[in-house]
Amino acid sequence: MKRTSRDIRTANRYEVLRQIIAASPTSRQELAVATGLSLATVATLVGELLDLRMITEVGFEDSAGGRPRGLVAVDSAGGALIGVDIAETYVHVELFDLALNVLARAEEDVRPGESLPEQVVGHVAAAVGSVVAQAGVEAARVLGVGVSVPGQVDRDTGLSEYAPNWDWHDVPLLDLLAEHIAYPLYLDNPLRACAVAELWFGAARGHEDAVVVNLGTGVGAGLVLGGGLHRGVSNSAGEWGHTTLVLDGRLCHCGNHGCVETYVGAPGIMLNLRELSPRSPLLHPGDQTATIDALARGVQAGDPVAVKVVRDTARYLGAAVADLVNLLNPEVVVLSSWVASRLGEPLVLEVREAVARHALRRPLAATEIVLSPIPTDPVCLGAATFALEGALQSVGQRGPRRAAPAKGRTAPPS
Amino acid sequence: MKRTSRDIRTANRYEVLRQIIAASPTSRQELAVATGLSLATVATLVGELLDLRMITEVGFEDSAGGRPRGLVAVDSAGGALIGVDIAETYVHVELFDLALNVLARAEEDVRPGESLPEQVVGHVAAAVGSVVAQAGVEAARVLGVGVSVPGQVDRDTGLSEYAPNWDWHDVPLLDLLAEHIAYPLYLDNPLRACAVAELWFGAARGHEDAVVVNLGTGVGAGLVLGGGLHRGVSNSAGEWGHTTLVLDGRLCHCGNHGCVETYVGAPGIMLNLRELSPRSPLLHPGDQTATIDALARGVQAGDPVAVKVVRDTARYLGAAVADLVNLLNPEVVVLSSWVASRLGEPLVLEVREAVARHALRRPLAATEIVLSPIPTDPVCLGAATFALEGALQSVGQRGPRRAAPAKGRTAPPS
Repeated sequence: MKRTSRDIRTANRYEVLRQIIAASPTSRQELAVATGLSLATVATLVGELLDLRMITEVGFEDSAGGRPRGLVAVDSAGGALIGVDIAETYVHVELFDLALNVLARAEEDVRPGESLPEQVVGHVAAAVGSVVAQAGVEAARVLGVGVSVPGQVDRDTGLSEYAPNWDWHDVPLLDLLAEHIAYPLYLDNPLRACAVAELWFGAARGHEDAVVVNLGTGVGAGLVLGGGLHRGVSNSAGEWGHTTLVLDGRLCHCGNHGCVETYVGAPGIMLNLRELSPRSPLLHPGDQTATIDALARGVQAGDPVAVKVVRDTARYLGAAVADLVNLLNPEVVVLSSWVASRLGEPLVLEVREAVARHALRRPLAATEIVLSPIPTDPVCLGAATFALEGALQSVGQRGPRRAAPAKGRTAPPS
Repeated sequence: MKRTSRDIRTANRYEVLRQIIAASPTSRQELAVATGLSLATVATLVGELLDLRMITEVGFEDSAGGRPRGLVAVDSAGGALIGVDIAETYVHVELFDLALNVLARAEEDVRPGESLPEQVVGHVAAAVGSVVAQAGVEAARVLGVGVSVPGQVDRDTGLSEYAPNWDWHDVPLLDLLAEHIAYPLYLDNPLRACAVAELWFGAARGHEDAVVVNLGTGVGAGLVLGGGLHRGVSNSAGEWGHTTLVLDGRLCHCGNHGCVETYVGAPGIMLNLRELSPRSPLLHPGDQTATIDALARGVQAGDPVAVKVVRDTARYLGAAVADLVNLLNPEVVVLSSWVASRLGEPLVLEVREAVARHALRRPLAATEIVLSPIPTDPVCLGAATFALEGALQSVGQRGPRRAAPAKGRTAPPS
């Protein structure tokens, strides 16, 4: 319950490593300036990261007249991290070095009807094996595997409690994965993966309060509050997709009516298009990706139907993002995930206008609305970051944590 | 930006004092158990509070076979705190001792047409003078005056940026008050006052994540996240009353349509009644208080129109509270302020049912919905608590902070 000095140390350790990753090589003095921490605190944290072999001493720089300053940099070879993005139609896996550069990628299609937990686990295990082999890293150097699965998850027990698109209920996903994967495993969902990716490497870096709006098949909002991820009491915070925008509106698979997701998730956008122009050639029934791509191309080409659908979607999105702005008063709202990246700046411009019509003046003036600047799959990056955080939390405990394959569950200690 | 060890110390100091207020007399050992802090940390914080004369040593208790343990208690006579609740139709002022017992009260009516800033300031100054005189406390013992004013406030500059019901814009309220009041002044709004009152003394005590839903003329949600008040980047978080529940619904004074406030604020409830039964004797046109009181009595008497209006209101409220549950995943939702306390348990029962229809299973199972247990005006109590927090933040600085009357602004250092 209580925030302890141990939590603070962990948060500061994250912050120092974030800064080193962003600006290697760097000196302890520069780190102190960049993080606002004292030089003594920075020196202690740098020492811990050196002991963990996550960073390394790389020489000295002259300081005007003073003693030469020691420089540190991420030790890319100090370990590997794996991020797994389990989505409705695919499994993406990426292997990263400690500077979070992608060293290898693998992708497996999940075909309709292949959505049994064992089938999905098989895809993940195959893709994880593939990236380790491709990158040629030793097993002992893999510090952890972060796994993102849509829906509600219990990270402590490794359970996928509810995955709406596959109707999974209480699937012991980490236990199943641990039968095939011997590395420490960390489970969470795409909302929080995208949020932590933005917090470490993207548009939320250095901000106390940020909202990462995830626009895909499902939608949600990863919440960065007080400089860290807000999880809520049972790790389900961020279900903005299931807040009511239109009381008694469209039926949602959650059972409620008028949820945000039914208007701005990919299937909702398809419905917006169908309502406007039922026989539009932009509509690819049953194929969300093709339809969103067609809309994106249509907007570029000035197709009036495509422009109108994006505007209608932005009207819903604007009202719903304004709710986040009014309620949470964040510094930045980041639009992330595949629908946002495919519709791109034209969507962002429309959303900014729509938010301005709905939000209160004071929080609106304090908020920026931007597209995610992360060029790769933010879910893989965020999932790998959970594994990195797990490794960092092990500092000061008896050696790095390693999950025994039989146990599998490696939720970080809280 | 960065959360520092100084912030942690301040939060821990709050927690220790909260615990002492709740359970005086108490020992350092009991405090360590109750707060989860180390005995050494508790001893340091208790020492600071003793130095501040906020608490006092009151004797010893036997510990089974060990050394007698020193007991401490709040030093009620160690200082006085004043809370000011400026509302649309009245100014309430209460003077508290350091255990937050009410020692004196004053109330001034604010008549329609009397809402110029100078007129309101006159009422506040008169009531503050009255409570100090009634309680017979020396001026030097008044540690501070917390002032709550509806709408958006800038606590650092003491500005009422926007008070919708009076159409105030950028009123330098603390500067105006400081011309009459020589005590340190702290400005905030009723949302945050109610939230901090629940956090210190009510249903949010000991919780990390709580939402305090304020149901009055205006509505909003004070957010307790990570064990502290979430203010947002420009101190305007919590404007849940201005989130969209019915896209293109009722016009709100904020300019948006379909805001939560237009359905569940007191004027919105009057409209719910008028739509159901335009000539109902329950309706007192132009008098919110009389109408809400008539509804409360009607529900008690089983009047079908009153029951239906409360059910309709709870339907809106349920969907909107479910949004908070899904988005923030709090441990507790507290219904506070005058509309909630007058409609009471019948409203809470209906709201619980309506939330259960709208919220996701996982966050719903983790959340309690309760009526505020605070028996007095929570806004006065919360405002006084801001003054107490201000006094506690001064620890370690050069002596307690005292605002010079000419300056007036006493926002706590950040």
